[in-house]
Amino acid sequence: MGFELHQQLQADCCQLGSFQLCRVLLCQDVNYPWFILVPQRQDITEIYQLDEKDQHQLWSESAVFSEVVMECFAGHKLNVAALGNMVPQLHLHHIVRYRDDPAWPGPIWGAVESKKYSQVQLAEVTNSLLPLLKNKGFIEKVAL
Amino acid sequence: MGFELHQQLQADCCQLGSFQLCRVLLCQDVNYPWFILVPQRQDITEIYQLDEKDQHQLWSESAVFSEVVMECFAGHKLNVAALGNMVPQLHLHHIVRYRDDPAWPGPIWGAVESKKYSQVQLAEVTNSLLPLLKNKGFIEKVAL
Repeated sequence: MGFELHQQLQADCCQLGSFQLCRVLLCQDVNYPWFILVPQRQDITEIYQLDEKDQHQLWSESAVFSEVVMECFAGHKLNVAALGNMVPQLHLHHIVRYRDDPAWPGPIWGAVESKKYSQVQLAEVTNSLLPLLKNKGFIEKVAL
Repeated sequence: MGFELHQQLQADCCQLGSFQLCRVLLCQDVNYPWFILVPQRQDITEIYQLDEKDQHQLWSESAVFSEVVMECFAGHKLNVAALGNMVPQLHLHHIVRYRDDPAWPGPIWGAVESKKYSQVQLAEVTNSLLPLLKNKGFIEKVAL
């Protein structure tokens, strides 16, 4: 289908796997459990540019994923956002927020400098999250 | 259905009307064409808490509205976001962005102080937008 992940997302994130439509990324920022869903379609910048079937699939995957990450990370609030001012490829942020996180109650973008995960921290996240995505239409990436 | 608009949204926005599910608000900030869709359901803070039918309706209304405001205001990018860290009632921002707006390319929240519309500016926005929402399932509020 000719989809290629934008190089900025490749640089800033780890690829965890994919749903039927969306690639699932973990942002390299230990400040928040911060995930990005990227519909694997070329040349789409706005949600309404997806055809109706893909829109439905996007929101269905987003809802499944949202509920799983809120359960997994025991968040107080979830932020869901399609901004794309810097990276035009359509991508949907899912950020688990806590009342004591470094940016609360503001949005996270630009709030504090991002901090990379260590290998141990990364394994902790994936070991908690990936089992909860079993049987939810999620296919794990073989090598992280 | 016992829905009541959160008082912060009442204070910060003008009510333009509603779709079948969502109340449509205009944020009192002349810096950006900034709209908010609020599903008229009580005690919902996250999208995935809406039942499946309401989720489908929300995204359908959001897509219709998004396309109309991008056409109406000739935007370069649309930002769509459900944050809700401060106002827990589920609400979905739709912000038309321009490459020369005061916050570009960052997110708008906290970027510059908001500036209220004058009555003339408000009439300009509603006179441009409301006719484009005709026959799209939108019902205008009788008195603004």
